[in-house]
Amino acid sequence: MPYVNIKVTREGVTETQKAALIKGVTDLLVEVLHKSPATTMVVIDEVDLDNWGIGGLPVTDYRRLAATSGQGSGSME
Amino acid sequence: MPYVNIKVTREGVTETQKAALIKGVTDLLVEVLHKSPATTMVVIDEVDLDNWGIGGLPVTDYRRLAATSGQGSGSME
Amino acid sequence: MPYVNIKVTREGVTETQKAALIKGVTDLLVEVLHKSPATTMVVIDEVDLDNWGIGGLPVTDYRRLAATSGQGSGSME
Amino acid sequence: MPYVNIKVTREGVTETQKAALIKGVTDLLVEVLHKSPATTMVVIDEVDLDNWGIGGLPVTDYRRLAATSGQGSGSME
Amino acid sequence: MPYVNIKVTREGVTETQKAALIKGVTDLLVEVLHKSPATTMVVIDEVDLDNWGIGGLPVTDYRRLAATSGQGSGSME
Amino acid sequence: MPYVNIKVTREGVTETQKAALIKGVTDLLVEVLHKSPATTMVVIDEVDLDNWGIGGLPVTDYRRLAATSGQGSGSME
Repeated sequence: MPYVNIKVTREGVTETQKAALIKGVTDLLVEVLHKSPATTMVVIDEVDLDNWGIGGLPVTDYRRLAATSGQGSGSME
Repeated sequence: MPYVNIKVTREGVTETQKAALIKGVTDLLVEVLHKSPATTMVVIDEVDLDNWGIGGLPVTDYRRLAATSGQGSGSME
Repeated sequence: MPYVNIKVTREGVTETQKAALIKGVTDLLVEVLHKSPATTMVVIDEVDLDNWGIGGLPVTDYRRLAATSGQGSGSME
Repeated sequence: MPYVNIKVTREGVTETQKAALIKGVTDLLVEVLHKSPATTMVVIDEVDLDNWGIGGLPVTDYRRLAATSGQGSGSME
Repeated sequence: MPYVNIKVTREGVTETQKAALIKGVTDLLVEVLHKSPATTMVVIDEVDLDNWGIGGLPVTDYRRLAATSGQGSGSME
Repeated sequence: MPYVNIKVTREGVTETQKAALIKGVTDLLVEVLHKSPATTMVVIDEVDLDNWGIGGLPVTDYRRLAATSGQGSGSME
């Protein structure tokens, strides 16, 4: 009866993508730990960019800096 | 000084119901563990239906399936 | 299908008390929000005293100070 | 830069299984949301059976009841 | 690679204040535990006043009562 | 009345360091948001290395790889 919480930045995650995350995580727990899907819960939190920090900066500033310094990972983050 | 986090689906929980949850959980901690209400915190998170999964499906799909298969628990979930 | 997380200090909470918390919270969600117990999860976290802070101090120091200053709430916290 | 928290009952999850969960969840976020693995964090919490409740009961009691009533899902939960 | 979650009431926290929290917490972890900022994540949750309880009451009621009883801590809470 | 949760790897964090984290975070919330220390809670979770993943790997493997590839951040993580 696992509980999984996924936090991602709020950037237009679609219904289909959310359903894929829910299915993917549940399948993983069945496969790796033989958990029952019936009692496996997944909660997705979408977090505003201003409210998420990494490297001591809000995400937006962090990405801008990474892009400028040429070390950015492109759009993937 | 307990901290309690209650996550429910966002489906029109009223102010009165939230107050009842806060009071009920606080009373329970006083009764069972003799905690002080003054330092007992309760945070309620309301989660969009698309963002909550069970049985490998978003809640809306899960309920539809349960209703169809006749195994649903009615409106209670 | 609520999920409830209860965090308390690790101070000898008994099995019976844990069962009472689980039952009490589940009953509350049934009563207030008509949730189904079958998909209501409760997770209790017991946190070491060193790892819990309030008033800018670890709990142990906070209680000692409160006792000394005569503003303490006795053993209840 | 997602953050994923997986809570499961503490029942001998092996290092290999933990690594499989970490890899599986990270791959899923890359695949579905094109997130960067470099900033994807996964934290696994193993929760004692006494501290996890479902159906208003601690997991151990819940399983015993499910087994008795013939509605149990076997060892899967 | 710490993960920090800060929950505060939703009361007009500005972008500048959020950036100050992110920077402050990250600096603290570097200073105290020598953690790398590059893998330090901070997530700020702003919680509606109705959804936050203390002393068995929603925050709004709690503050009104504290103000009336003359024990309130002014606007600080 | 903020609630702050700090998750770090379990690697011998001392009592003094924990007290410094609790004081530092509380001071930050007073300074930036004028919160009252009396109702500011901090909970520190120490997570086993096996249970923390980054880059799709458990922390121990991630560090070994980073050290080998010469991109590691030394002992800081």
